[in-house]
Amino acid sequence: MPRRPDDPAALFAAARAGDRGALARLLSMVERGGDEAREVGRLSYPLGGTATTVGITGAPGAGKSTLTSALVRSMRGEGETVAVLAVDPSSPFTGGAILGDRVRMGEHALDDDVFIRSMATRGHLGGLSLAVPEAVRLLDAVGLPWVLLETVGVGQVEVEVAGEADTTVVVVNPGWGDAVQANKAGLMEIADVFVVNKADRAGLADTLSDLERMLSLRTSAEGWRPPVVATVATTGDGVDELWSAMREHAAWAASSGELARRRRARTEAELRRILTARLLQRATELAEGHAYDDALAAVLDRRLDPWSAAATLLD
Amino acid sequence: MPRRPDDPAALFAAARAGDRGALARLLSMVERGGDEAREVGRLSYPLGGTATTVGITGAPGAGKSTLTSALVRSMRGEGETVAVLAVDPSSPFTGGAILGDRVRMGEHALDDDVFIRSMATRGHLGGLSLAVPEAVRLLDAVGLPWVLLETVGVGQVEVEVAGEADTTVVVVNPGWGDAVQANKAGLMEIADVFVVNKADRAGLADTLSDLERMLSLRTSAEGWRPPVVATVATTGDGVDELWSAMREHAAWAASSGELARRRRARTEAELRRILTARLLQRATELAEGHAYDDALAAVLDRRLDPWSAAATLLD
Repeated sequence: MPRRPDDPAALFAAARAGDRGALARLLSMVERGGDEAREVGRLSYPLGGTATTVGITGAPGAGKSTLTSALVRSMRGEGETVAVLAVDPSSPFTGGAILGDRVRMGEHALDDDVFIRSMATRGHLGGLSLAVPEAVRLLDAVGLPWVLLETVGVGQVEVEVAGEADTTVVVVNPGWGDAVQANKAGLMEIADVFVVNKADRAGLADTLSDLERMLSLRTSAEGWRPPVVATVATTGDGVDELWSAMREHAAWAASSGELARRRRARTEAELRRILTARLLQRATELAEGHAYDDALAAVLDRRLDPWSAAATLLD
Repeated sequence: MPRRPDDPAALFAAARAGDRGALARLLSMVERGGDEAREVGRLSYPLGGTATTVGITGAPGAGKSTLTSALVRSMRGEGETVAVLAVDPSSPFTGGAILGDRVRMGEHALDDDVFIRSMATRGHLGGLSLAVPEAVRLLDAVGLPWVLLETVGVGQVEVEVAGEADTTVVVVNPGWGDAVQANKAGLMEIADVFVVNKADRAGLADTLSDLERMLSLRTSAEGWRPPVVATVATTGDGVDELWSAMREHAAWAASSGELARRRRARTEAELRRILTARLLQRATELAEGHAYDDALAAVLDRRLDPWSAAATLLD
């Protein structure tokens, strides 16, 4: 019997009961933004707050996808249920990325306790920085306890997305200094756990001492010193240690009050972003109406200066 | 007899009568934004529309200041009255820049028919991209027929400011290709006149043929092919030719309809920027009020999702 295809409430109930197809369709609504996304948000919000989000970021080529896949293997080995959101700000569509998921996460494709999804904007008002928190709340509300946010690169949006997780893992490689010079300070600031992946390559010792030196300069008033874990994602070496480090950070954050502090700051930042996005949307709507055309004509005829015209439109 | 120091209308009347000190104070009001700036805008707007604005941009070190000073000398030689606005997006304050004006434009400092001013933001809502058009309207309204907008570098704001003039002069040097690689396309697009300054240096012929080649690729549907003028600003060589090229472009733009088209597009872009800036200001104000604190508390308590909270605040 066919169900109503686009009813968020029905899809939400199905997703809560474990229907991954329904969850995927809800995530598509979230990506698109709009009224359905708002409805998904209203359904999700009261039920969330228990999932732990882990941002995984680092320069392109650092091996984040392979590491994430290996990490999921470790987590599944202990019976954990995991969601992976691969966040790619450069892609306006997810079609290709979805195909990519199946290829790169092939080993988990048939595992119902691993939910993998790529996210792009698809025109969501405010872009990924607003769509991702909504997606996380949905995954949280349907009962996925771990949400890994894997970002493609170290651009501003990606660092922002990864940095707004409960725990942030920064992946570098031996000799990383040259590759991510521009964003080094930003990465140092958001890292709760450092991973030196491809640790079988030359330069590991130098990179480890480089990181330790930088970490010793970092203010550790918050009482957590980011551990540095060496991994080889392709063989799985060190990945269990990464999983342990993640859990340790999550436990510390929960007990120290850091988790509550972060979530509060994140909520506040999100609310401001939503307000800004909604007001910018209003500016666009204003600029498309008749009143705008009249105001523009008045300015062009020098009957009204631009600021007075804007004030008239806004009233 | 002391006049009221901060009455825009009195200052405006004095500035129209030729009082450069009054004009300088009105420009400070424009830089600060706020209610006084709006009043200056209302006074200026009905009287403007006759001045020709010339944007002068190019990489740092291209010799724009020296060239501008030499150009003012050529213009003054023919009895023209000129205003120079030096636009520096990197400087939040104008104090140092004003001192700089006196040094670098020293030869014109005592000439009442040359008005020289540096502009920074001083907290103007929307920054330079909104403050500069207001300043130009003021200079126009007090009867200055030529306004040269000299920008410090080739950053986004500077190219925007220079590109929104009636005539845009792009200054390069022999061997320019390496210096401004990143912004080459943007500069090619906005240039109405190209100047190869420091033309006594090695590489002039290559640079000229490079420019001609790129200009031949440019779509010239608009019927104007940017001339390329070689100058040595320190000796004045070629500067009269630049002044001629500027006048030719201005005359062509006026007769071809291009000037009207540009001014219309500029006005429209400015009106949109003002709307956006005003709405962003509203977002900030919203985020500082009691209602915002209540909404945030509701979100943190999971009584309300963030989008619903934002909708409540905006209503």
